Amino acid sequence: MPVFAVIGHRARTDGSWSFNDMPGGAGRMDVLCRAVNTSFFLSHDLRRDVVCYLVLRGEPGPEKTIRFEGDRVRYLSPDERSAGSLIKKALELVAGPEFRESTKGVSVREGGLARLLGDHSFALLDEAGEDVRGAGELPEAYLLSDHLNFDEDEQALVQDLPRYSVSPRSLHADHTITVLLNELDRRIP
Amino acid sequence: MPVFAVIGHRARTDGSWSFNDMPGGAGRMDVLCRAVNTSFFLSHDLRRDVVCYLVLRGEPGPEKTIRFEGDRVRYLSPDERSAGSLIKKALELVAGPEFRESTKGVSVREGGLARLLGDHSFALLDEAGEDVRGAGELPEAYLLSDHLNFDEDEQALVQDLPRYSVSPRSLHADHTITVLLNELDRRIP
Repeated sequence: MPVFAVIGHRARTDGSWSFNDMPGGAGRMDVLCRAVNTSFFLSHDLRRDVVCYLVLRGEPGPEKTIRFEGDRVRYLSPDERSAGSLIKKALELVAGPEFRESTKGVSVREGGLARLLGDHSFALLDEAGEDVRGAGELPEAYLLSDHLNFDEDEQALVQDLPRYSVSPRSLHADHTITVLLNELDRRIP
Repeated sequence: MPVFAVIGHRARTDGSWSFNDMPGGAGRMDVLCRAVNTSFFLSHDLRRDVVCYLVLRGEPGPEKTIRFEGDRVRYLSPDERSAGSLIKKALELVAGPEFRESTKGVSVREGGLARLLGDHSFALLDEAGEDVRGAGELPEAYLLSDHLNFDEDEQALVQDLPRYSVSPRSLHADHTITVLLNELDRRIP
Protein backbone atom coordinates (compact mmCIF):
# COMPACT_ATOMS: atom_id res chain seq x y z
CA MET A 1 0.00 0.00 0.00
CA PRO A 2 2.10 2.95 -1.15
CA VAL A 3 1.13 6.18 0.62
CA PHE A 4 2.02 9.64 -0.66
CA ALA A 5 1.57 12.97 1.06
CA VAL A 6 2.18 16.26 -0.72
CA ILE A 7 2.37 19.60 1.08
CA GLY A 8 0.60 22.42 -0.74
CA HIS A 9 2.11 25.46 0.93
CA ARG A 10 -0.18 28.02 -0.66
CA ALA A 11 -3.11 25.77 -1.61
CA ARG A 12 -6.38 27.42 -0.60
CA THR A 13 -8.30 25.75 2.20
CA ASP A 14 -11.72 26.86 0.99
CA GLY A 15 -13.54 26.28 -2.28
CA SER A 16 -13.53 29.89 -3.46
CA TRP A 17 -11.23 29.46 -6.47
CA SER A 18 -11.74 28.87 -10.15
CA PHE A 19 -10.77 25.83 -12.21
CA ASN A 20 -9.46 28.37 -14.69
CA ASP A 21 -6.89 29.67 -12.21
CA MET A 22 -5.60 26.66 -10.31
CA PRO A 23 -1.92 27.72 -10.62
CA GLY A 24 -2.72 31.29 -9.51
CA GLY A 25 -5.64 32.09 -7.23
CA ALA A 26 -5.95 28.52 -5.97
CA GLY A 27 -2.33 28.53 -4.73
CA ARG A 28 -0.68 26.08 -7.13
CA MET A 29 -3.56 23.65 -6.78
CA ASP A 30 -2.42 22.30 -10.19
CA VAL A 31 0.63 20.77 -8.51
CA LEU A 32 -1.59 18.81 -6.12
CA CYS A 33 -3.91 17.74 -8.96
CA ARG A 34 -1.00 16.31 -10.91
CA ALA A 35 0.22 14.48 -7.81
CA VAL A 36 -3.20 12.83 -7.57
CA ASN A 37 -2.96 11.85 -11.24
CA THR A 38 0.46 10.24 -10.94
CA SER A 39 -0.45 8.51 -7.67
CA PHE A 40 -3.35 6.61 -9.17
CA PHE A 41 -3.42 6.33 -12.94
CA LEU A 42 -2.32 3.35 -14.92
CA SER A 43 -3.27 2.88 -18.54
CA HIS A 44 -7.01 2.10 -18.42
CA ASP A 45 -6.76 1.27 -14.72
CA LEU A 46 -6.31 2.80 -11.27
CA ARG A 47 -3.77 1.87 -8.61
CA ARG A 48 -6.30 0.65 -6.07
CA ASP A 49 -3.67 0.10 -3.36
CA VAL A 50 -2.45 3.71 -3.23
CA VAL A 51 -3.49 6.40 -0.74
CA CYS A 52 -2.62 10.03 -1.48
CA TYR A 53 -2.84 12.83 1.09
CA LEU A 54 -2.81 16.51 0.20
CA VAL A 55 -1.95 18.93 2.99
CA LEU A 56 -3.37 22.35 2.16
CA ARG A 57 -1.66 25.20 3.99
CA GLY A 58 -2.77 28.32 2.14
CA GLU A 59 -5.37 31.01 2.75
CA PRO A 60 -7.77 31.42 4.45
CA GLY A 61 -6.68 28.57 6.79
CA PRO A 62 -6.57 26.77 9.10
CA GLU A 63 -4.82 23.95 7.27
CA LYS A 64 -6.69 20.86 6.09
CA THR A 65 -5.75 17.39 4.92
CA ILE A 66 -7.52 15.72 2.00
CA ARG A 67 -7.22 11.96 1.51
CA PHE A 68 -7.71 10.12 -1.80
CA GLU A 69 -8.09 6.34 -1.44
CA GLY A 70 -7.48 4.30 -4.58
CA ASP A 71 -9.67 1.40 -3.51
CA ARG A 72 -12.72 3.63 -3.10
CA VAL A 73 -12.27 6.68 -5.30
CA ARG A 74 -14.82 7.37 -8.05
CA TYR A 75 -15.35 10.16 -10.60
CA LEU A 76 -11.59 10.69 -10.99
CA SER A 77 -10.25 11.27 -14.51
CA PRO A 78 -6.63 11.96 -15.43
CA ASP A 79 -7.02 15.67 -16.27
CA GLU A 80 -6.17 18.36 -13.73
CA ARG A 81 -9.71 19.73 -13.58
CA SER A 82 -11.07 16.34 -12.54
CA ALA A 83 -8.85 16.06 -9.46
CA GLY A 84 -9.45 19.78 -8.88
CA SER A 85 -13.17 19.23 -8.86
CA LEU A 86 -12.92 16.51 -6.18
CA ILE A 87 -10.59 18.72 -4.13
CA LYS A 88 -13.03 21.62 -4.35
CA LYS A 89 -15.91 19.41 -3.18
CA ALA A 90 -13.80 18.27 -0.23
CA LEU A 91 -13.03 21.89 0.67
CA GLU A 92 -16.70 22.80 0.54
CA LEU A 93 -17.47 20.24 3.26
CA VAL A 94 -17.00 21.46 6.83
CA ALA A 95 -13.82 19.77 8.06
CA GLY A 96 -13.91 18.19 11.50
CA PRO A 97 -11.30 16.43 13.61
CA GLU A 98 -11.78 13.10 11.79
CA PHE A 99 -11.88 12.34 8.05
CA ARG A 100 -15.31 12.85 6.50
CA GLU A 101 -16.04 11.73 2.97
CA SER A 102 -16.96 14.45 0.46
CA THR A 103 -17.19 12.19 -2.60
CA LYS A 104 -16.57 8.48 -2.80
CA GLY A 105 -12.97 7.77 -1.79
CA VAL A 106 -12.14 11.42 -1.01
CA SER A 107 -12.22 12.71 2.58
CA VAL A 108 -11.14 15.79 4.48
CA ARG A 109 -10.18 16.64 8.04
CA GLU A 110 -8.70 19.52 10.01
CA GLY A 111 -4.98 19.68 10.62
CA GLY A 112 -1.87 19.08 8.64
CA LEU A 113 1.57 17.54 8.65
CA ALA A 114 2.12 17.22 12.39
CA ARG A 115 -0.92 15.00 12.78
CA LEU A 116 -0.35 13.08 9.53
CA LEU A 117 3.13 12.06 10.68
CA GLY A 118 1.43 10.10 13.45
CA ASP A 119 -0.64 8.09 10.96
CA HIS A 120 2.17 6.57 8.86
CA SER A 121 5.92 6.02 9.05
CA PHE A 122 6.90 8.48 6.36
CA ALA A 123 10.15 8.75 4.48
CA LEU A 124 11.14 11.98 2.79
CA LEU A 125 11.70 12.10 -0.96
CA ASP A 126 14.70 14.35 -1.23
CA GLU A 127 17.54 14.73 -3.71
CA ALA A 128 20.07 14.17 -0.95
CA GLY A 129 18.53 10.86 0.10
CA GLU A 130 19.56 7.27 -0.63
CA ASP A 131 18.96 6.23 -4.22
CA VAL A 132 15.81 4.07 -4.29
CA ARG A 133 17.31 1.83 -6.97
CA GLY A 134 20.07 0.58 -4.75
CA ALA A 135 18.07 0.61 -1.54
CA GLY A 136 16.93 -2.45 0.40
CA GLU A 137 13.31 -2.78 1.44
CA LEU A 138 11.56 0.50 0.70
CA PRO A 139 9.20 2.25 3.10
CA GLU A 140 5.46 2.36 2.58
CA ALA A 141 4.82 6.09 2.97
CA TYR A 142 6.50 9.05 1.25
CA LEU A 143 6.35 12.76 1.93
CA LEU A 144 6.88 15.38 -0.77
CA SER A 145 6.66 19.13 -1.05
CA ASP A 146 5.08 21.17 -3.83
CA HIS A 147 7.06 23.82 -5.73
CA LEU A 148 8.25 25.33 -2.43
CA ASN A 149 10.74 23.85 0.01
CA PHE A 150 9.68 22.70 3.45
CA ASP A 151 9.51 25.70 5.75
CA GLU A 152 11.22 25.97 9.11
CA ASP A 153 8.36 24.42 11.09
CA GLU A 154 8.08 21.52 8.65
CA GLN A 155 11.84 21.00 8.65
CA ALA A 156 11.68 20.58 12.40
CA LEU A 157 8.97 17.93 12.00
CA VAL A 158 10.70 15.94 9.25
CA GLN A 159 14.37 16.29 10.10
CA ASP A 160 14.67 12.76 11.49
CA LEU A 161 12.77 10.97 8.70
CA PRO A 162 14.69 8.60 6.43
CA ARG A 163 15.43 10.19 3.04
CA TYR A 164 15.28 8.63 -0.40
CA SER A 165 16.09 10.01 -3.82
CA VAL A 166 14.70 8.92 -7.19
CA SER A 167 16.83 10.98 -9.55
CA PRO A 168 20.15 12.77 -9.91
CA ARG A 169 18.08 15.82 -10.97
CA SER A 170 15.57 17.87 -9.03
CA LEU A 171 12.07 16.80 -10.13
CA HIS A 172 8.52 18.02 -9.67
CA ALA A 173 6.53 16.19 -7.00
CA ASP A 174 4.27 14.42 -9.53
CA HIS A 175 7.23 13.20 -11.59
CA THR A 176 8.92 11.97 -8.41
CA ILE A 177 5.85 9.89 -7.59
CA THR A 178 5.89 8.36 -11.08
CA VAL A 179 9.53 7.32 -10.79
CA LEU A 180 9.07 5.93 -7.30
CA LEU A 181 6.04 3.88 -8.36
CA ASN A 182 8.09 2.51 -11.26
CA GLU A 183 10.69 1.28 -8.78
CA LEU A 184 7.96 -0.30 -6.62
CA ASP A 185 6.27 -1.88 -9.68
CA ARG A 186 9.58 -3.48 -10.65
CA ARG A 187 9.93 -5.01 -7.19
CA ILE A 188 6.59 -6.81 -7.28
CA PRO A 189 7.50 -10.50 -7.56
CA MET B 1 18.79 15.45 -27.39
CA PRO B 2 15.86 13.24 -26.37
CA VAL B 3 12.98 13.49 -28.83
CA PHE B 4 9.43 12.41 -28.03
CA ALA B 5 6.47 12.14 -30.37
CA VAL B 6 2.96 11.45 -29.12
CA ILE B 7 0.07 10.52 -31.40
CA GLY B 8 -3.21 12.24 -30.49
CA HIS B 9 -5.70 10.09 -32.34
CA ARG B 10 -8.71 12.29 -31.71
CA ALA B 11 -6.98 15.60 -30.98
CA ARG B 12 -8.65 18.41 -32.89
CA THR B 13 -6.63 20.00 -35.66
CA ASP B 14 -8.26 23.42 -35.35
CA GLY B 15 -8.50 25.84 -32.43
CA SER B 16 -12.27 25.58 -31.93
CA TRP B 17 -12.22 23.93 -28.51
CA SER B 18 -12.42 25.13 -24.96
CA PHE B 19 -9.77 24.92 -22.25
CA ASN B 20 -12.63 23.76 -20.04
CA ASP B 21 -13.19 20.67 -22.16
CA MET B 22 -9.77 19.44 -23.21
CA PRO B 23 -10.53 15.77 -22.39
CA GLY B 24 -13.88 15.90 -24.24
CA GLY B 25 -14.47 18.26 -27.14
CA ALA B 26 -10.77 18.80 -27.80
CA GLY B 27 -10.21 15.04 -28.29
CA ARG B 28 -8.13 14.16 -25.23
CA MET B 29 -5.93 17.20 -25.71
CA ASP B 30 -5.20 16.85 -21.95
CA VAL B 31 -3.11 13.76 -22.70
CA LEU B 32 -0.91 15.75 -25.09
CA CYS B 33 -0.64 18.65 -22.62
CA ARG B 34 0.63 16.32 -19.92
CA ALA B 35 3.14 14.81 -22.34
CA VAL B 36 4.50 18.32 -22.96
CA ASN B 37 4.75 18.85 -19.20
CA THR B 38 6.68 15.65 -18.54
CA SER B 39 8.94 16.18 -21.57
CA PHE B 40 10.24 19.52 -20.35
CA PHE B 41 9.77 20.28 -16.68
CA LEU B 42 12.40 19.92 -14.03
CA SER B 43 12.04 21.53 -10.64
CA HIS B 44 12.49 25.26 -11.35
CA ASP B 45 14.06 24.48 -14.72
CA LEU B 46 13.29 23.24 -18.23
CA ARG B 47 14.94 20.41 -20.14
CA ARG B 48 16.41 22.60 -22.86
CA ASP B 49 17.72 19.63 -24.86
CA VAL B 50 14.32 17.95 -25.39
CA VAL B 51 12.09 18.20 -28.47
CA CYS B 52 8.48 17.03 -28.24
CA TYR B 53 6.23 16.47 -31.24
CA LEU B 54 2.46 16.14 -31.02
CA VAL B 55 0.72 14.51 -33.98
CA LEU B 56 -2.92 15.61 -34.06
CA ARG B 57 -5.17 13.28 -35.99
CA GLY B 58 -8.70 14.29 -34.97
CA GLU B 59 -11.43 16.40 -36.54
CA PRO B 60 -11.69 18.40 -38.73
CA GLY B 61 -8.36 17.29 -40.26
CA PRO B 62 -6.15 16.98 -42.16
CA GLU B 63 -3.59 15.95 -39.55
CA LYS B 64 -0.98 18.36 -38.23
CA THR B 65 2.27 18.07 -36.30
CA ILE B 66 3.18 20.52 -33.54
CA ARG B 67 6.77 20.78 -32.36
CA PHE B 68 7.88 22.06 -28.93
CA GLU B 69 11.61 22.83 -28.68
CA GLY B 70 13.03 23.04 -25.18
CA ASP B 71 15.88 25.35 -26.12
CA ARG B 72 13.52 27.99 -27.51
CA VAL B 73 10.13 27.53 -25.83
CA ARG B 74 8.71 30.42 -23.79
CA TYR B 75 5.43 31.04 -21.93
CA LEU B 76 5.17 27.36 -20.92
CA SER B 77 4.03 26.61 -17.37
CA PRO B 78 3.50 23.14 -15.89
CA ASP B 79 -0.31 23.22 -15.82
CA GLU B 80 -2.38 21.61 -18.58
CA ARG B 81 -3.99 24.87 -19.65
CA SER B 82 -0.62 26.45 -20.32
CA ALA B 83 0.47 23.77 -22.79
CA GLY B 84 -3.10 23.78 -24.14
CA SER B 85 -2.89 27.49 -24.78
CA LEU B 86 0.31 27.12 -26.84
CA ILE B 87 -1.23 24.21 -28.77
CA LYS B 88 -4.32 26.27 -29.53
CA LYS B 89 -2.19 29.16 -30.83
CA ALA B 90 -0.32 26.72 -33.07
CA LEU B 91 -3.60 25.37 -34.43
CA GLU B 92 -4.83 28.87 -35.18
CA LEU B 93 -1.87 29.45 -37.48
CA VAL B 94 -2.32 28.22 -41.07
CA ALA B 95 -0.15 25.11 -41.33
CA GLY B 96 2.06 24.78 -44.39
CA PRO B 97 4.42 22.09 -45.61
CA GLU B 98 7.27 23.29 -43.35
CA PHE B 99 7.26 24.12 -39.64
CA ARG B 100 6.17 27.69 -38.91
CA GLU B 101 6.52 29.18 -35.45
CA SER B 102 3.29 30.15 -33.68
CA THR B 103 4.85 31.20 -30.38
CA LYS B 104 8.50 31.08 -29.41
CA GLY B 105 9.72 27.48 -29.56
CA VAL B 106 6.37 26.09 -30.78
CA SER B 107 5.80 25.37 -34.49
CA VAL B 108 3.27 23.60 -36.65
CA ARG B 109 3.22 21.95 -40.06
CA GLU B 110 0.92 19.81 -42.19
CA GLY B 111 1.22 16.04 -42.06
CA GLY B 112 1.68 13.41 -39.42
CA LEU B 113 3.49 10.24 -38.50
CA ALA B 114 4.60 9.10 -41.97
CA ARG B 115 6.57 12.27 -42.53
CA LEU B 116 7.87 12.52 -38.96
CA LEU B 117 9.39 9.04 -39.19
CA GLY B 118 11.69 10.45 -41.85
CA ASP B 119 12.98 13.16 -39.50
CA HIS B 120 14.32 10.98 -36.66
CA SER B 121 15.22 7.34 -36.01
CA PHE B 122 12.37 6.57 -33.66
CA ALA B 123 12.01 3.69 -31.25
CA LEU B 124 8.62 2.61 -29.98
CA LEU B 125 7.81 2.72 -26.28
CA ASP B 126 5.83 -0.45 -25.84
CA GLU B 127 5.23 -2.83 -22.95
CA ALA B 128 6.54 -5.72 -25.00
CA GLY B 129 9.85 -4.00 -25.75
CA GLU B 130 13.29 -4.42 -24.23
CA ASP B 131 13.55 -3.08 -20.68
CA VAL B 132 15.37 0.27 -20.85
CA ARG B 133 17.15 -0.45 -17.58
CA GLY B 134 19.05 -3.38 -18.94
CA ALA B 135 19.48 -1.98 -22.44
CA GLY B 136 22.76 -0.85 -23.99
CA GLU B 137 22.95 2.55 -25.65
CA LEU B 138 19.46 3.98 -25.87
CA PRO B 139 18.02 5.65 -28.95
CA GLU B 140 17.48 9.39 -29.21
CA ALA B 141 13.86 9.48 -30.35
CA TYR B 142 10.77 7.79 -28.89
CA LEU B 143 7.27 7.35 -30.23
CA LEU B 144 4.22 6.97 -27.99
CA SER B 145 0.48 6.78 -28.43
CA ASP B 146 -2.19 8.56 -26.42
CA HIS B 147 -4.97 6.64 -24.66
CA LEU B 148 -5.69 4.70 -27.88
CA ASN B 149 -3.53 2.03 -29.48
CA PHE B 150 -1.84 2.60 -32.80
CA ASP B 151 -4.35 1.98 -35.59
CA GLU B 152 -3.77 -0.32 -38.53
CA ASP B 153 -2.15 2.32 -40.74
CA GLU B 154 0.17 3.39 -37.94
CA GLN B 155 1.03 -0.22 -37.10
CA ALA B 156 2.17 -0.66 -40.68
CA LEU B 157 4.43 2.37 -40.36
CA VAL B 158 5.99 1.42 -37.01
CA GLN B 159 6.15 -2.35 -37.15
CA ASP B 160 9.88 -2.47 -37.81
CA LEU B 161 10.92 0.09 -35.20
CA PRO B 162 12.95 -1.09 -32.21
CA ARG B 163 10.81 -1.40 -29.08
CA TYR B 164 11.63 -0.45 -25.52
CA SER B 165 9.67 -0.83 -22.30
CA VAL B 166 9.98 1.27 -19.14
CA SER B 167 7.68 -0.67 -16.79
CA PRO B 168 6.14 -4.07 -16.12
CA ARG B 169 2.78 -2.24 -16.04
CA SER B 170 0.93 -0.38 -18.75
CA LEU B 171 1.46 3.35 -18.19
CA HIS B 172 0.04 6.59 -19.55
CA ALA B 173 2.18 8.30 -22.20
CA ASP B 174 3.21 11.15 -19.90
CA HIS B 175 4.26 8.79 -17.11
CA THR B 176 6.23 6.73 -19.63
CA ILE B 177 8.15 9.85 -20.66
CA THR B 178 8.97 10.62 -17.01
CA VAL B 179 10.36 7.13 -16.39
CA LEU B 180 12.37 7.13 -19.61
CA LEU B 181 13.90 10.54 -18.82
CA ASN B 182 14.84 9.20 -15.38
CA GLU B 183 16.77 6.39 -17.04
CA LEU B 184 18.49 8.88 -19.38
CA ASP B 185 19.28 11.25 -16.47
CA ARG B 186 20.93 8.40 -14.61
CA ARG B 187 23.16 7.64 -17.60
CA ILE B 188 24.61 11.14 -17.86
CA PRO B 189 28.25 10.75 -16.76
